[in-house]
Amino acid sequence: MITRIAFIGFGVVGQGLAEILLEQKNDLKNQIGFEFEVVAVSDKMKGSVYNEVGLDLQKLLELVKSTGKIDEYPEGIKGWDSLKTITETNANLIIEVSWTDINTGEPAITHIKTAIGCHKHVVMTNKGPIALAARELISMAKTNGVEMRFEGTVLSGTPAINLGVNNLASSKITKVAGIVNGTTNYILTEMEKGLKYEEALKQAQKLGYAEADPTADVEGFDALGKIVILTNVVMGGNITKDQVPCQGITKITSQDIDEAKKESKRWKLIAGAELKDDGSVEAYVMPKKIPLDHPLAAVSGPINALTYTTKYLGDVTVIGPGAGRAATGYALLTDILDIHRKISR
Amino acid sequence: MITRIAFIGFGVVGQGLAEILLEQKNDLKNQIGFEFEVVAVSDKMKGSVYNEVGLDLQKLLELVKSTGKIDEYPEGIKGWDSLKTITETNANLIIEVSWTDINTGEPAITHIKTAIGCHKHVVMTNKGPIALAARELISMAKTNGVEMRFEGTVLSGTPAINLGVNNLASSKITKVAGIVNGTTNYILTEMEKGLKYEEALKQAQKLGYAEADPTADVEGFDALGKIVILTNVVMGGNITKDQVPCQGITKITSQDIDEAKKESKRWKLIAGAELKDDGSVEAYVMPKKIPLDHPLAAVSGPINALTYTTKYLGDVTVIGPGAGRAATGYALLTDILDIHRKISR
Repeated sequence: MITRIAFIGFGVVGQGLAEILLEQKNDLKNQIGFEFEVVAVSDKMKGSVYNEVGLDLQKLLELVKSTGKIDEYPEGIKGWDSLKTITETNANLIIEVSWTDINTGEPAITHIKTAIGCHKHVVMTNKGPIALAARELISMAKTNGVEMRFEGTVLSGTPAINLGVNNLASSKITKVAGIVNGTTNYILTEMEKGLKYEEALKQAQKLGYAEADPTADVEGFDALGKIVILTNVVMGGNITKDQVPCQGITKITSQDIDEAKKESKRWKLIAGAELKDDGSVEAYVMPKKIPLDHPLAAVSGPINALTYTTKYLGDVTVIGPGAGRAATGYALLTDILDIHRKISR
Repeated sequence: MITRIAFIGFGVVGQGLAEILLEQKNDLKNQIGFEFEVVAVSDKMKGSVYNEVGLDLQKLLELVKSTGKIDEYPEGIKGWDSLKTITETNANLIIEVSWTDINTGEPAITHIKTAIGCHKHVVMTNKGPIALAARELISMAKTNGVEMRFEGTVLSGTPAINLGVNNLASSKITKVAGIVNGTTNYILTEMEKGLKYEEALKQAQKLGYAEADPTADVEGFDALGKIVILTNVVMGGNITKDQVPCQGITKITSQDIDEAKKESKRWKLIAGAELKDDGSVEAYVMPKKIPLDHPLAAVSGPINALTYTTKYLGDVTVIGPGAGRAATGYALLTDILDIHRKISR
């Protein structure tokens, strides 16, 4: 069975996945038996194209890189918006990579519900929908007999959600705590090297790690979305982000950094969740001083990490990239292949 | 469908799994739909028992703990040896947890081949068979339409093999390197605290981390078996242990430790493998000085860790226990559940 793929959104992450798919097309077919065609791409700014027998990915990527547009792709139907692309193309798998709105989850939530409603599988890296509506979406997917995956919403392609949901499924996870935001971790690492907060932030912006408006990162809101996802999806909790105490790194001074050093510790912005005796799960985002001999203390720069505390294994930590074109594109590929394995058995 | 389980061997690891199975029986049924009965246990020293409708695990565990024997279990057939238990009981899943012989792989290889030959699934934590005969056994299992799993052969229950084979399957792994032996890592950690090699070894023996004859650990042979497994199973290589340069930690002096410290480095016994341009894979076991800011440097005491270097994600590191009753028991449970998911779909 050939998987027919439609991209909703075609920015950095979408293109990152498209590049990997192009590069691996033969290997995926020969080694895993996964065959696909990308039949449609619809992006609010770049335009859209649909060809039911498949688009030439190389041509499409070159076009987007040289013109920033999709409309000029030679063959196929043009001008279909995201909803029409989801409902009326012959795609059976929707890659939702439109933009992230952590407050409303839109337009992604509508895209996902529409896809599920017409019985198409969905993968995404967009935190918004899962942070805001994980239970509703998971239940809707189940009811409609389709698969939904979102490994890339936490730690990009580094196995984080799947690690908890699959590999550690019956290990009795009691806690999760980690460094889930690379921007703040980079800033803290640079502050340890002697920079002031403002200098480290500027450097992060220069390197593209921080946005012009860094609020979502430095105030902890990005980490907040991720810990809500881990709490509700991996830990069996049922919380909203308003219930989570959230503190960023803006109040950490160079003096705080020095004092931690003297205690053989290191400041990290930690997002965590803990299973309580009554079965509820409590989450938090806050800067913490981590002893230097703890695995999380060694995670520096834009790298992310997550420690699961379990009954049978004690602590299991995974460390890897938390962002990036290829890493986030790869997250989508793991989701696609996971769905392929599930439905092709 | 109920999975009927037979234990071949019932030492620390087997009992560790039995305890987890007993504790989680209801959860596994209700949450995952996994139903099982342990129908047989056969241990060379402790005796054996078979009851086709299932044994009472609690009774069995209490009996073994109080008497060290299985024969006195009240109901069931007694005295069947491992081969008869594999072939003639109604078990459809064999837990191979007899002893490890890293040079011959026996008797485990015979147990596994016998099980596969009569179309029974097999899980194990025994390095021997996989280090010596992975290709043959995997191919035999495939031909006979049964599943074989061995997550616990490397890093016990910490996801290591599955991480490479599943989560990172299409990430284009080019290298793997890690701390895969807890005994030597404990000794090196203690030497950093000021102990001499002999003192640290003695302490490891006292704590049960090292055997009376510590050769397999300190000369690197245990790590060697594990890197051969990772090379052949995860990296697509085809090597035997004789082809791998192997050096342990016995030549590391307190002076070496101090010198590394001065360079902001730390000695670790590293087992590694690297994909070469010609498609072959080269492996090694040797002590290496690791920079303090590398994730592996922060892995201390009996903890293990593995770093996969990949094209799309860069480095992904997992850190967790490498041994222990519950951790190794849990490795078997993940394998059992993985087989359940696969065959019940």
